[in-house]
Amino acid sequence: MGRIGKHSFTLERRPRIISSASYVGDKEGKGPLGHCFDKICKDDTLGLPSWEQAESRMFESSVRVALAKIHAQSSDLSCLMGGDLLNQIISAGFAAREIRSPFIGLYGACSTMSEGIMVGSMLVDGGYMDLVACAASSHFSSAERQYRYPLEMGVQATPTCQRTVTGAGCVLIKDPENLNGEYPFNSIELIGGTVGSVEDFGITDANNMGAAMAPAAAETICTHFRDFSTSPANYDRIITGDLGSFGSEMLYELCRGQGYDIKSKHDDCGKLMFSEEQNVHCGGSGCGCAATVLAGHILPKIESGEYKKILFLATGAMLSPVSSLQGESIPAIAHALVIKHVEEI
Amino acid sequence: MGRIGKHSFTLERRPRIISSASYVGDKEGKGPLGHCFDKICKDDTLGLPSWEQAESRMFESSVRVALAKIHAQSSDLSCLMGGDLLNQIISAGFAAREIRSPFIGLYGACSTMSEGIMVGSMLVDGGYMDLVACAASSHFSSAERQYRYPLEMGVQATPTCQRTVTGAGCVLIKDPENLNGEYPFNSIELIGGTVGSVEDFGITDANNMGAAMAPAAAETICTHFRDFSTSPANYDRIITGDLGSFGSEMLYELCRGQGYDIKSKHDDCGKLMFSEEQNVHCGGSGCGCAATVLAGHILPKIESGEYKKILFLATGAMLSPVSSLQGESIPAIAHALVIKHVEEI
Repeated sequence: MGRIGKHSFTLERRPRIISSASYVGDKEGKGPLGHCFDKICKDDTLGLPSWEQAESRMFESSVRVALAKIHAQSSDLSCLMGGDLLNQIISAGFAAREIRSPFIGLYGACSTMSEGIMVGSMLVDGGYMDLVACAASSHFSSAERQYRYPLEMGVQATPTCQRTVTGAGCVLIKDPENLNGEYPFNSIELIGGTVGSVEDFGITDANNMGAAMAPAAAETICTHFRDFSTSPANYDRIITGDLGSFGSEMLYELCRGQGYDIKSKHDDCGKLMFSEEQNVHCGGSGCGCAATVLAGHILPKIESGEYKKILFLATGAMLSPVSSLQGESIPAIAHALVIKHVEEI
Repeated sequence: MGRIGKHSFTLERRPRIISSASYVGDKEGKGPLGHCFDKICKDDTLGLPSWEQAESRMFESSVRVALAKIHAQSSDLSCLMGGDLLNQIISAGFAAREIRSPFIGLYGACSTMSEGIMVGSMLVDGGYMDLVACAASSHFSSAERQYRYPLEMGVQATPTCQRTVTGAGCVLIKDPENLNGEYPFNSIELIGGTVGSVEDFGITDANNMGAAMAPAAAETICTHFRDFSTSPANYDRIITGDLGSFGSEMLYELCRGQGYDIKSKHDDCGKLMFSEEQNVHCGGSGCGCAATVLAGHILPKIESGEYKKILFLATGAMLSPVSSLQGESIPAIAHALVIKHVEEI
């Protein structure tokens, strides 16, 4: 059986990640990872009447590009699963209308990419699905006006704030017993993971998401090590979604309190996405941050063998503007996946 | 393997539904199903400062009551999965914070109860989880002000509109090889289902959700019959979530167009929830409608053997107020589950 510990699972047939795609905005394209992404848009409306429609188009496009790389079409998909930050996940929902495959809508805020791959990998491993697309998106302009202020107001950013990444990322998970020919990735397997629970340390500052999400990341990481009786030494990298620089420091402290020193192994997609010169304060955030960095930057390093085994966990803050206005603190969640380079036999 | 046709799956180990709970508002409690529900609130704020907090409390309570019926606690859960209609699924997310089990957040609008049981049943069947709680909620007052108008405005309802149900429902799915003693339900098994895709017939009237959702329900029902080479004759009932009276008529037409006459087998939770005297126009709607009717009314009939086999499919409209204001039509989705009375050997 695929259960381990209280919160974790193993994938005995080891589903493969065979393709990915990423589509980012102009600012992301000018960052240190700009060369990794499949598509970069100069105009973040993509010529459409609204940012929301542009985000949905980026979501759809990331799925279509990932499929094109394996010479497949959307009708070959067993399922599309994913979500985004917008109310009622309209980016994902409207993209699913165009793609027309079976669809499972998720909401995990910025943890969505981990959540989708986690659920998708179990459904493939269990034999219920053959080819699953997992995708997530976010868009600076659609998120900012939904969560904070209209862009036209020009509100000043706080030192702890992060910039929502404009981008969409997709990965394709395939039944390892139905591999058929060469793919963009031929050496990436999913072997297990840990399902996160909602943690809340009472942070109420919606401009300090890193601090709100760090406890959830720490809890999932430490639970993972305990469930699998393992330690940071057994992973090449431990990569979080978008804790940013402030949240990352808090994560090290919290893990150290449970006996694990992860600092030397840790990367954060939010820190990798932008350079200091880009003036984004604590880094990137949003579902699209972890999704595009995984698709464009991390997976190629696993394929090449530069990383033999990583723990990937996107982190999400489960607040809404309504809950914040009603005085609630910010609950958060993180789901962890073990992604491995396939070893030669 | 558990795949069948393009969109469907079978559950070879047949996970069990062992418990359920339902919590509804005053108006629902006065309807024809009032006697079926576990808890009925007189004051739809539950004495809390906001309707949103009341909805989250109802969600949490439905999970705790379902667990109490099997003398279990939230720490016994492998996972809680579910969602609601509110932005960023705050009802489910904040309930998950209190319950503290692993959590998978879903967004399928009013299809969420089907979606949760579908994913949960595969994760249990595949051996990744032992005991999963699937829950969904909605609340008339929190939904109305989010999707339509402030209640204080007293806007007149249109003839095709439906009333969002105030309620939360939960079912517990259990690994059939780990059954241990007597449960509230000892004879209900999940044997398969069909994953829905997003359908859109171009309906733009947010007061006519039934018409927007009927095409998705028809597509999933007909795909289900084709994938399993079966027909309506093999089911005691085919039960949709909240098409209401107008959407149900449209469903019969659409299924007839594909060669299936389902009218004599069909029930709709939205039609069952309220009586005509309650003046709710086309019936109930909302995630909580299908969730509470399944938990309180349908499952006991399967347990008793009155229904030997049903097809249950909650239906969701994947719109947001923003997408409607931007002129988008209303995409919809429906996921189907085959729920069966366990036959004596």
